[in-house]
Amino acid sequence: MFKKRDVAIISAATAKCGERWESGIKDLVWEAGVKALDDAGISGKDVEYMVVGNMSGGMFVGQEHIGALVADFLGLNPIPSLRVEAACASGGIAFSQGYMAVASGLYDIVAVGGVEKMTDVDTDQATSVLSGAMDFEWEAYFGATFPGLYALMATRYLHDFNVRREILAKVAVKNHYHGSLNPLAHFRNRITEEEALTAPMVAYPLRKYDCSPISDGAAAAILAPLEIAKKYTDTPILVEACVPATDTLSLLKRRDICTVDATVNAARKAFQLSGRERRDIDVMEVHDCFTIAELLAIEDMGFCKKGEAGKLYEEGQTYADGSLPVNTDGGLKAAGHPVGATGVKQISELVKQLRGQAEKGRQVSGAEVGLAHNVGGSGATAVVTILSRRS
Amino acid sequence: MFKKRDVAIISAATAKCGERWESGIKDLVWEAGVKALDDAGISGKDVEYMVVGNMSGGMFVGQEHIGALVADFLGLNPIPSLRVEAACASGGIAFSQGYMAVASGLYDIVAVGGVEKMTDVDTDQATSVLSGAMDFEWEAYFGATFPGLYALMATRYLHDFNVRREILAKVAVKNHYHGSLNPLAHFRNRITEEEALTAPMVAYPLRKYDCSPISDGAAAAILAPLEIAKKYTDTPILVEACVPATDTLSLLKRRDICTVDATVNAARKAFQLSGRERRDIDVMEVHDCFTIAELLAIEDMGFCKKGEAGKLYEEGQTYADGSLPVNTDGGLKAAGHPVGATGVKQISELVKQLRGQAEKGRQVSGAEVGLAHNVGGSGATAVVTILSRRS
Repeated sequence: MFKKRDVAIISAATAKCGERWESGIKDLVWEAGVKALDDAGISGKDVEYMVVGNMSGGMFVGQEHIGALVADFLGLNPIPSLRVEAACASGGIAFSQGYMAVASGLYDIVAVGGVEKMTDVDTDQATSVLSGAMDFEWEAYFGATFPGLYALMATRYLHDFNVRREILAKVAVKNHYHGSLNPLAHFRNRITEEEALTAPMVAYPLRKYDCSPISDGAAAAILAPLEIAKKYTDTPILVEACVPATDTLSLLKRRDICTVDATVNAARKAFQLSGRERRDIDVMEVHDCFTIAELLAIEDMGFCKKGEAGKLYEEGQTYADGSLPVNTDGGLKAAGHPVGATGVKQISELVKQLRGQAEKGRQVSGAEVGLAHNVGGSGATAVVTILSRRS
Repeated sequence: MFKKRDVAIISAATAKCGERWESGIKDLVWEAGVKALDDAGISGKDVEYMVVGNMSGGMFVGQEHIGALVADFLGLNPIPSLRVEAACASGGIAFSQGYMAVASGLYDIVAVGGVEKMTDVDTDQATSVLSGAMDFEWEAYFGATFPGLYALMATRYLHDFNVRREILAKVAVKNHYHGSLNPLAHFRNRITEEEALTAPMVAYPLRKYDCSPISDGAAAAILAPLEIAKKYTDTPILVEACVPATDTLSLLKRRDICTVDATVNAARKAFQLSGRERRDIDVMEVHDCFTIAELLAIEDMGFCKKGEAGKLYEEGQTYADGSLPVNTDGGLKAAGHPVGATGVKQISELVKQLRGQAEKGRQVSGAEVGLAHNVGGSGATAVVTILSRRS
C-alpha cells in the first residue's frame, strides 16, 4: 500500500500589508521570502521547488509568468517555479501544491509564496479585475460585483435565519480589534459597533466595515518532509490535511446561496483525513472577504448549526481569548486582503500562533491545532488546511 | 526510502485548433475533455483532481478562476480544480502538477487540461497580452514584443554560427508539411522554402512563416497510477520524467541569448531521472513558437552540438520518416499555439504517436519513446517530459 510522506512547515512569514506605493510585486515577495528563509536558517540555494499564488498579475500590473519572475528575482533559477491561480484562493491552492510537491517525494525543501500588487490600478479597475473571479458570462457581464454578490448572500441569510444586522458589525469590530494588535495589519484602528452600523453603504446590507480592503501584500512558507524538519526548527508544524474543493462559479447555480458547498466539502474531507474533531481546533483563520463570509464559513465547516454563528459573536467567543478564536491577525477585513497572498498569509498567522509567537492580546494561549479556510470568488473554490504543532 | 508512484497517461485528446469564432473557453475545454474521458472509457465522476493550464484568461476574455470554471462546466464539482500559469509553458506545467498529484498518492484519476481563447481580442491586444510573459519592468515597458526578442536571438545565432537564413525556412516548411497531414491543425497548407523566404517581414530576420499563429484551442490528458492503468487502456503511456526549470525572465540577464538554460537544465534532469539516452527518443514535440526556437531547443537538449541543428534540416532528418522526427503534428507553427493549451497538446500528440494512431505520412514507425518540450516566454520556464509506451 502506497503511503504519502508527512509534510511539515519549517518557517513562514508575512510582508507588511497595505497600500505599499513604494513596492512592486518583486519587492513584496522579497520581503516575505527573505524573512521565511532567514527564519528557517536556509538560503535560496536550499530551495528545490517553488509555487506562487497570484490572482491577476496580468490585469493588475501587466505581468504574468510570476512563478519564474519570483524565482528570478530571488536568485533561485533554475529550480521549477510556477504560479497557481484560483481567484482569492490562489494562496491556499499554492500551499496545496507545495504540500503535494513534498508529499509526492519529488522535492524536499519547497517554498510557497503568495503575492498581489493591487494598488497600481484605481478602485474601479480593481473591482473590474476582481470580477474575473466570478462567472464572466453569467455574472460579470451583467454588471455584478463581489460586494453585490455577497450582499445577496447576506440579505438572504439575515432573512432566513432571522439574524440581526448587528451580528455582521460584531464580526468587523472583532477583526479590527485583532488587527490593532498586529503590526503587519493593513488597518490597525479599532472600531465600534456604532461606527460599523452607520458607515457608508456599499451594497445593502453591507457597509464599509463589512468589506475587506484592496491591499498590496505577500506571504511565504517553507515546507519539508516531517522526518527532516527538526533539522531546521524546534517547532515543526505538521500539515495534517490540505484539501481544496470546487463549486459552481455563479451563485445562481447553487442549491442555496447561504451555504458554500466548496467549504462544506473541503472541511468534511480535511477533518476526515486528519482524524480531528471540530473541538480540537484551537485557532482558525477564516476567509472574511465580507463579514457575512466569516459567519457562513464557521457554519459550513460544522462549528455550529446553520444560522447560529451569531451566538458565538454575541458571547465574544471568537476573540483570541474565547472558545473559538477566529482571525486573530485581523482577518481579511483588518489584516488586509492581497488576494493571491491571503491563503499563505493565513498559514503564516497559524504558524505564529502555534509557535506561541503572536503579539500580546491576540496570542491564543497554548494553541496546538489550527485551521485555515481560504475561498475564491463567491465560493467556487475553497481550501481547508489543518495544522498542528510538533514539539 | 520513500519512493513515488509510477504515473501513466491513460488517454489524451486535442480540440481542433484555429480561429474558433463560435467557441468560448468552456466549449473548447469541453471538446478536448469529453474526447479524453470517452477515450479512457470513464465519466467525469471518476475524475478526482483537475489542473488546467491557461496563460491569460483574465486579459483575453475577462475570466480568471479557470480551474473552478472548467470543473463547473464539465460537471466535476466538488473535486479540486486549479489553474496554473507559466506563460506559454502553462500546459506543460499543468501536466507536471497532474503528474505530481498522482505520484504523491493523494489522487488516482487526474485530469489535466490546457486552454486558451485568444481571438476575442485583436492582434495588437493579443501581442500586448502575450507581453505579460516577459519581464514587464525591463522588457515590455520599453516596447519589446516576442517576435522582437526572438529576432534578437535569431540574429545572434545566424551570426555566431554562420547559419544561413534558409535553415529557418526549412523548419517552417517541415512543420507546415506535417500540419497538412493533421486534421486538427490550425494551418493545413504546405509552403515552399521560397514562400517562407519572401513572406512579409515581422522582425528581422523573422518573417511571417517563422512565427506561430494566435490560435484558439484546448487539449486534455487523463493520468492514473501505472499499476491500475491497464484497467483503462491497452496502451498506457508511462511518464518517465516531467521536469520544469526556470531562468531569468529578461533576455538581458542571460549568459548567452542563443542558449535557453531552462531547457538545458530541464532536459539534463529529465534524461537523468528517466535513465534515457538522446538516441532513445523516437519522436519529439518541441516548442517552435518561432522557427529559431526549434533549432535552439534541439541543441539545448543535447541532440546535437550548438550551432549544428541546421544539418539535420539540410538532410530532412526531422520529418516523420527521418532519424529525429520533430513536431509531427505541425508544431506550434502549423498545428497552432493556443498558449495555455500547447504543452498539453504536445503530450496528446505524443500519446497518439506512441499508440501508432497518427495519420498516414506523419506517423513515426514503431515509436516507443517520446519527448515533449514546452517553453514559457523567451525561456524563463521550460518543461521537458519523457514518455514511453507500456504494452
